[in-house]
Amino acid sequence: MSVTSSVTSDAESRPPSTPAGPWLHRPVADLDAETLNTLDRWWRAANYLSVGQIYLLANPLLRTPLSADDVKPRLLGHWGTTPGLNFVYAHLNRVIAERGQSTIYLTGPGHGGPGLVANSYLEGSYTETYPDITADAEGMRRLFRQFSFPGGIPSHVAPETPGSIHEGGELGYVLSHAYGAAFDNPDLLVAAVVGDGEAETGPLATSWHSNKFVNPTLDGVVLPILHLNGYKIANPTVLARIPDDELLSLMRGYGHKPHLFVGGFDGEDPAAAHARFAVLLDEVFNEIADIKASAAAGNTGRPTWPMIILRTPKGWTCPPVIDGKQVEDSWRSHQVPLASARDTPEHLEVLHDWLTSYGAEELFDDDGVLAADIAALAPPGDLRMSANPHANGGLLLRDLRMPDYTEFAVDVPAPGAAIAEPTKVLGQWLTEVIRRNPDNFRIFGPDETASNRLQSVYDVTDKQWNAGYLESDSDDHLARAGRVMEMLSEHQCQGWLEGYLLTGRHGLFNCYEAFIHIVDSMFNQHAKWLDVTRDIPWRRPIASLNYLLSSHVWRQDHNGFSHQDPGFIDHVMNKKSEIVRVYLPPDANTLLSTYDHCLRSRDYVNVVVSGKQPGPQFLTMDEAIAHCTRGLGIWEWAGTEVLGEDPDVVLGCAGDIPTLEVLAAADLLRKHLPDLLVRVVNVVDLMRLQDEREHPHGLSDRDFSTYFTDTKPVIFAYHGYPWLLHRLTYRRTGHANLHVRGYKEEGTTTTPFDMVMLNDLDRYHLVMDVIDRVPGLGSKAAGLRQEMSDARLRARRYTREHGDDIPEVRDWVWPDAGDTGTAEGGPERSATASTAGDNE
Amino acid sequence: MSVTSSVTSDAESRPPSTPAGPWLHRPVADLDAETLNTLDRWWRAANYLSVGQIYLLANPLLRTPLSADDVKPRLLGHWGTTPGLNFVYAHLNRVIAERGQSTIYLTGPGHGGPGLVANSYLEGSYTETYPDITADAEGMRRLFRQFSFPGGIPSHVAPETPGSIHEGGELGYVLSHAYGAAFDNPDLLVAAVVGDGEAETGPLATSWHSNKFVNPTLDGVVLPILHLNGYKIANPTVLARIPDDELLSLMRGYGHKPHLFVGGFDGEDPAAAHARFAVLLDEVFNEIADIKASAAAGNTGRPTWPMIILRTPKGWTCPPVIDGKQVEDSWRSHQVPLASARDTPEHLEVLHDWLTSYGAEELFDDDGVLAADIAALAPPGDLRMSANPHANGGLLLRDLRMPDYTEFAVDVPAPGAAIAEPTKVLGQWLTEVIRRNPDNFRIFGPDETASNRLQSVYDVTDKQWNAGYLESDSDDHLARAGRVMEMLSEHQCQGWLEGYLLTGRHGLFNCYEAFIHIVDSMFNQHAKWLDVTRDIPWRRPIASLNYLLSSHVWRQDHNGFSHQDPGFIDHVMNKKSEIVRVYLPPDANTLLSTYDHCLRSRDYVNVVVSGKQPGPQFLTMDEAIAHCTRGLGIWEWAGTEVLGEDPDVVLGCAGDIPTLEVLAAADLLRKHLPDLLVRVVNVVDLMRLQDEREHPHGLSDRDFSTYFTDTKPVIFAYHGYPWLLHRLTYRRTGHANLHVRGYKEEGTTTTPFDMVMLNDLDRYHLVMDVIDRVPGLGSKAAGLRQEMSDARLRARRYTREHGDDIPEVRDWVWPDAGDTGTAEGGPERSATASTAGDNE
Repeated sequence: MSVTSSVTSDAESRPPSTPAGPWLHRPVADLDAETLNTLDRWWRAANYLSVGQIYLLANPLLRTPLSADDVKPRLLGHWGTTPGLNFVYAHLNRVIAERGQSTIYLTGPGHGGPGLVANSYLEGSYTETYPDITADAEGMRRLFRQFSFPGGIPSHVAPETPGSIHEGGELGYVLSHAYGAAFDNPDLLVAAVVGDGEAETGPLATSWHSNKFVNPTLDGVVLPILHLNGYKIANPTVLARIPDDELLSLMRGYGHKPHLFVGGFDGEDPAAAHARFAVLLDEVFNEIADIKASAAAGNTGRPTWPMIILRTPKGWTCPPVIDGKQVEDSWRSHQVPLASARDTPEHLEVLHDWLTSYGAEELFDDDGVLAADIAALAPPGDLRMSANPHANGGLLLRDLRMPDYTEFAVDVPAPGAAIAEPTKVLGQWLTEVIRRNPDNFRIFGPDETASNRLQSVYDVTDKQWNAGYLESDSDDHLARAGRVMEMLSEHQCQGWLEGYLLTGRHGLFNCYEAFIHIVDSMFNQHAKWLDVTRDIPWRRPIASLNYLLSSHVWRQDHNGFSHQDPGFIDHVMNKKSEIVRVYLPPDANTLLSTYDHCLRSRDYVNVVVSGKQPGPQFLTMDEAIAHCTRGLGIWEWAGTEVLGEDPDVVLGCAGDIPTLEVLAAADLLRKHLPDLLVRVVNVVDLMRLQDEREHPHGLSDRDFSTYFTDTKPVIFAYHGYPWLLHRLTYRRTGHANLHVRGYKEEGTTTTPFDMVMLNDLDRYHLVMDVIDRVPGLGSKAAGLRQEMSDARLRARRYTREHGDDIPEVRDWVWPDAGDTGTAEGGPERSATASTAGDNE
Repeated sequence: MSVTSSVTSDAESRPPSTPAGPWLHRPVADLDAETLNTLDRWWRAANYLSVGQIYLLANPLLRTPLSADDVKPRLLGHWGTTPGLNFVYAHLNRVIAERGQSTIYLTGPGHGGPGLVANSYLEGSYTETYPDITADAEGMRRLFRQFSFPGGIPSHVAPETPGSIHEGGELGYVLSHAYGAAFDNPDLLVAAVVGDGEAETGPLATSWHSNKFVNPTLDGVVLPILHLNGYKIANPTVLARIPDDELLSLMRGYGHKPHLFVGGFDGEDPAAAHARFAVLLDEVFNEIADIKASAAAGNTGRPTWPMIILRTPKGWTCPPVIDGKQVEDSWRSHQVPLASARDTPEHLEVLHDWLTSYGAEELFDDDGVLAADIAALAPPGDLRMSANPHANGGLLLRDLRMPDYTEFAVDVPAPGAAIAEPTKVLGQWLTEVIRRNPDNFRIFGPDETASNRLQSVYDVTDKQWNAGYLESDSDDHLARAGRVMEMLSEHQCQGWLEGYLLTGRHGLFNCYEAFIHIVDSMFNQHAKWLDVTRDIPWRRPIASLNYLLSSHVWRQDHNGFSHQDPGFIDHVMNKKSEIVRVYLPPDANTLLSTYDHCLRSRDYVNVVVSGKQPGPQFLTMDEAIAHCTRGLGIWEWAGTEVLGEDPDVVLGCAGDIPTLEVLAAADLLRKHLPDLLVRVVNVVDLMRLQDEREHPHGLSDRDFSTYFTDTKPVIFAYHGYPWLLHRLTYRRTGHANLHVRGYKEEGTTTTPFDMVMLNDLDRYHLVMDVIDRVPGLGSKAAGLRQEMSDARLRARRYTREHGDDIPEVRDWVWPDAGDTGTAEGGPERSATASTAGDNE
C-alpha cells in the first residue's frame, strides 16, 4: 500500500477508466441487469461472510455437510444491522468507482463488525493488512474462526478493522465523528450510517445540527444515512414508529433534504431494491455535486444537504421465522437470530438453509476465491473505503508548524512579581499556532473559548458558523470559515475533535472543568481506541487529544457548588498509563511549556488544568522549561531549607490555587518561624508522583525520596480530590507522612479565598498543619497556631460582611515580588476584571 | 402550610372564586386593561427584584441617591434569561388562578435564579419559607444582599429556591425532569422553559421525544416553552439562527404543535405583548384541556401536544446600549449586562436609570410592601408554583408497599449448591413491588430491562410506549401505560427518574455497567442536590436514586473491551459519604436483601452491581440477611481457620465474579495445602471498608482488624479498579499487607474465565499470591505454584482452541455443593443460555 503518495494524487492509483472525482455530476444510473446482479452478488457475498463469522468455526464453504462441530460453541456478535450496512457498502462501491469519489464509511451501529470485516475481505484490503487471512477457503476459515473468538478480533468495527475510525461500541457519536473527519477535507465524502436505536441518544439527536457548522467549500461532505431497521435490543425504535411526515419534518427541521427509501419488505425482489437504491444514490451524489459547485461558484449560504432514510427489515435475509417466532424484521434478529445451532438437528438445518440461501458456490470458486466480477465492483486502491488513508489518520498526519512559545513568555522579574491570566497568555501563542497551521488545527469548545480567555485567537481567525447571520455587532467573530468550533454540546466538541484527530489532524478541546464529566464515557472510548491501536502496527500514531480545562473548581464564582467537580482527573487516571497524561501548570510560563509539549505528542490524552483568572506568576521562561521538563521541582526561592540538610517539613503543591496558598503559607512560616526549614515542591506533571513501574513518567523511589524525604511531614495542597494523591503515592516509603488537602465538596460561596477556606485548603490551615506535624516547635508555634485560627475567622467574617475577600489575603503577594516591583505598578486584582465572562 | 392535606383536596385551599381544575377549557382571554396592567406590574416587580439581587447590597428601594457603596463589590449571577422567565411566570400565574390548574415551573436556564427567587418573594412563599426575608424594605434589602453573596444563596435555581426541582447548573435536562415529574401525576401541569443554548445539548435534543412515552390519561402534561432569546455566553444559538419554517418543522418533527410568539422587539409596547401572550396561553391551555378530555373519552392515540416558542430579546428591559456596545438582545446581557457600577459615575447612573425604569415606587409602598393588586395575581396557597408540594416531593412521598423479599429466596441447600441468575430473581421480587405499587414506582432503562433479566416484571406490567404500534408479535409488552420506561438514552432514563423521585415517587435505573458513565455528570448534579437538601429543613427526604448495574465489566461477552469500565463506583465515591452507597452482592439472596434496603432508603444514591448470568448461590436467605446487615462477613464454611487462632492468610472478595474466583482459590488451597489456615471475607457494602470517621457505614479500626487481621497477608479480589480498595483502607493498620486484584483494562476476549485471566484475577493467580505472601510454606507450595501456573496456561490454550472455557473451570462448583446435590440435577451452564440477550 503506497498510501501517502496516493492521497496527494488519487489519479496514480486509478485505472484509466476511473473518472477523476471529487464531486462529479453524472447521469443517474440506469443500470443494466448485469451490474444490478453484481451489486446483489457483492451483497450476498458480504452477508454470507457475515453469517459465517458469527456462526462457523470450520467448513467455511460447506464443502462437507454442516455438522454441529462446525458451529462455534458460543455465538456472539450482532446480525441485525449487518445486511443493511452491507447493502449500503455495495452500492457506495459502485458510485465511488464510477465517480472516483474519495469516501470513508462510518457505521454508527458499530456492532455490525462482521459486515465491515466482510467488505474489507471482499475488497482485498483485509488480506493486505492481515496476510494470514488469505483470499481462499483456508483464509475464509480463519476469518470466520477469529471473529469474537478468544485471541481473535472483537465483534465491533474496532481499531483492528481496516477502514474504521468509529467503533460504535457506545452509541451516539457517528455524526460527530463524521463531521470531525470532514472538516478541512474538502474532497472527502463521509458516509455515515446512523442506527435508529442510536438516533435516540442525546449526542446523536443534537449532532444533526452539525450541518450548521460545516463549510461547503473548505470542508468535506457528510452524507447521513438513517438506517431505520425498526428495532433495538428488545423494543421498536422511536423514529421507526412515528408517521413518515413527522420523520421527514424532523429531518427538514434539522436542515436536511431527506430521501426516504423503503426496501426489502413484502418479498420485494432484491434486484428491484438494488435498482431503486442505485438511482437514489446517484441522485443524492448529484445533489451533493451541485451544492459543491454552487459553493465553489461563490454561493455562501448554508446548503440543504441531502440525507437518506433507509428503511429495511432488521436482520434482512435471515430466516423469517425460527421456532415459530418472527425473527427477520423483529428485535429478535438484533444479535444472533438463531441462538443455538448445536442443540438440535432442526436448528442446525436452519443455519444450513440460511447459509446456503446466499448461493456461495456462485460467489466463490472451488478454492474459495471471490468471483472476478464481484471483485471488480470494488474501487481501485485507496478509493476502497477499507483502504482509504483518511481512516488511518496517522498516515496523513503532518507535524504542526510550531511557533516558539518562549517568545510569548510572561516577564517574571522575580517570583510573584507579575500578574497574568495564564490561559490568556496561552491564547496568544495559540493564535500563532493557528496562523501557521491554517488547515489542520482547530479549537473546539462549548461556547467558552472567550470565557476561557483564549480570545486573542480571534485576531487571526473566527468561529465557523453556517447558521444564519444578523447585521448587528452581536455577531462577534462569526464567519463561514474559521478555526474555532463552538456549539453548546460537550459531546459535539469531543466527537468533532475525535473525528478530526482520527483523520490525521490536530486540535484541542477547551471546557469548564465542571462540565468535562459530560464526556467521561466518550473519553473512555477514545482512550480504549488509542490503547488498542498501540498494538496495531499498521495504525500510525495520531495527534493526542488535548484538553484545556479552565474555569476550574476553585474559581466558579458565578456558579458555585453546582459547577465544582475536579474528578475528571480521577476518571482519566483509571485508564492505561501509556495513554493518559495530566498536567497542572501553576502559572502562564509553565502552561506554555506544557502545551507546547502536548501539541507535539502523539496517541495520548493530555489533560491540562489551568486557571484563567489573573494570578501571580512565579517562574521565568527558562525556569518554567526546566520545571516542566522535570515535571516537578523544589522551589528553593520559596523555601527556607539549608543546603545539605533535610528540611523540617515539605510543602507540596499541584494546581495554581493550591500553589498560591502553599506560597502564602510558606511566607507566613518564614515570617513567624524563621528557623523552621521548609521545602516547597511544586508538581506540574501529576504522573511523576506515581511509581516508575506504574507509569512511564513515574519517579523512582529514590528520586521521590529526594524530593519529599522519607521521614519528614509532607503537607500537600492539591487541586482535586485528595485521595488521588494517596493513590499515586501509597507505595512510597514516606507515604505515611503525607497529609493532603484538596477539594472536599463543601457547599458554595462566591469569593475565591472563601472557597479555599470552605475546603480547608487555605494558607492558615496549611500553617496549622505544619505546626501539628513538625515535632518540637515549642510554645511560639502554639501561639502562631492560635494566630492562624484567628486570622481565618477574621477572613471569613470579613467576607461575609463585605462580599469580597479580606485585603490582606486578596492583595497578598510573594514578599520578594514586592521588593522587585512590577512593570505595571504591582499586581492588581479588580473584582470586576476577575469575574467577567466566568459564566455559563 | 398544610401541604399534604391540600394536595389530596386542592379545593380546601382555594377561595370560592377559583375554579376547580384541572384541565378546564375556558374562553380565551380578552383581558381588560387593568388585568394587563397587573400582569405588567408583576413582571416589572419581578424584574426589579432580579436586578436588585444581582447589583444591590443596600438601599433596595432607592430611597436615597444610589451610591457606589450600595452596589455589590463582586457582581455575579445571570440576567440574560431572567426577564423572559419572569414574563412567563407572571402569565402562568393568571392562568393558574383562573383555572385552578396545579402547575410547577421548571427553568432549564436555571442560572435565572434571581427571577425565580423574585417570583417566590412576590408570592409570599419566600417569606413563609425564610421568615427573615420579610415582605418589606428591610426584607428586600436582605433578599438582595444574600444573592450570590458569601454565606447567602447560590445564583441558580438551587434547592434553596422554593418551588424548584431543577437547578439547571449543567444544562440539558429540563424536559427529562419535567416528564419525570409528570409521570403518574395526571392532574399536574409541568411548564418547562427550555433555553435555546441548552437546546443545543444532546440530552435536551433527544428529550423532546419524551412525548412518545407520556400517557395522556394517567400522566400529567408537560408544556415545553422554548425560550429563543438568541444568545449563549458569546455566540448566537443555533435554533435562533435557522429559518422559522425549519424551526417549526423541527418541532413538528418532534411531534409537537408549535406556537411561535415573538415579543419585545422594535420597541413593542409591553401591554401589547402581554395581551398577545395571554391569548396564546389560553389557547394552549385549552388545547391541552381538549387533549385531556379526548383521552379521557377513550381516544388512545398519541396526541400532538402544544409547545410554545417564545422569541424575546435577551436581557429584555436592560439598558439597550452600554459603553457604546449593544447589550440588550445580545450575548453581552447573558450575565451582568453592566460589568461594574462602582468604577465610574456614568456606570452608576446606568444602573440607577435601569433600576428606576421599572417604577418600583408604583409597585411597592413606602414600607416596601408589594401593592395589593399585584399580590392578588398570585394563585392561592399551594397553587402558587413556588409553593406547589410537587416541587418538594418528600412532602408527598408515600412508603412503598413492600413484598417480603424472603419469599423470593433461592433455595441454597449448601453453599454453591444452586445455580441462579441474580437479577432474574430480583426481577421476580420487583414484579411484586410493581403489583403492589401501581402508581408510584417505575423502572427505567435504556432498552436493557429484559437483557438485564428483569423480564418477569412483564408478567404484571408493560413498557409504556405512545409512539406507533404494529400488529405483529414484535411488539413485546408494549402498552399505552406501564411501569417500565425504556428509551435508548441513559440521559433520559436518569433525567426521568430524577424528576420522578424529586416529586415524591420511587424507582430504579437498570443499566449496563459500561454505559452508566454516560450520566456521570448528571449523577454529580443530583448528588449535590441531595447533599444540599440535607441542610434545608423544609425540604423533606425523597426516595433514593437506585442504580442496578448489570452486564458488568466481567461479562461483556458480546461486546468486549469497549463495554468494560467499572469506574462508576470510583466516580460515585468522590461524592459526600452522607449521600452515596455502593453494594456488590455476591449472589441472588444478598441482592434481594440489598435491594429491599435500597428501596426503603431516603436521600441516597445507591449503586448496586450484580451479574445477570447463571452462577452459583452461596447463602441461604437467613445467612444473606445477616451478611447484608453486617455489610461484610467471614464465610467460615469457605475457610479453613481454627477457632481462636489467627488465619495464615485472608482472602477478601467483593463482587460476584471475584467471589467465585476466591472460592475456587480457597478450594484449591484446601485441597493442596490442607494445613494452611485460610479465612474468606466477603464484602457486600463497600463503604464498610472505610474508616468510621469517613463514612457512616465505616468499620472501626478494631473491627477491621478483627476481620482482616493486622499482620497477615490479605489477598483481595475486587470487582473494579484495584486502587479504590487501597483508597478505602489506606489508614488501616494492616494496609501494607493488602494485595488487591481487580480490573486492569486489559484487552478483549469472549469467554468468562479468559476475561478473568486477562486481568490476572483468576483462581490460579490468587493461589500464587497466597504462596508468594505467606511465609514458610516450603517446597510443597513451590510445586503448587508451578502447578497453578501450568493450569493457567492450559486453560488459556484450551480457550483459544475451543472458543469456550476449559471444563474444569467452567463446571467447577464449590466441593460441598456437589455432595449435597442440587434439586435440578446440578449446576448447568449452557453457553447459549448464558449469552443470549447480553448485547447492545
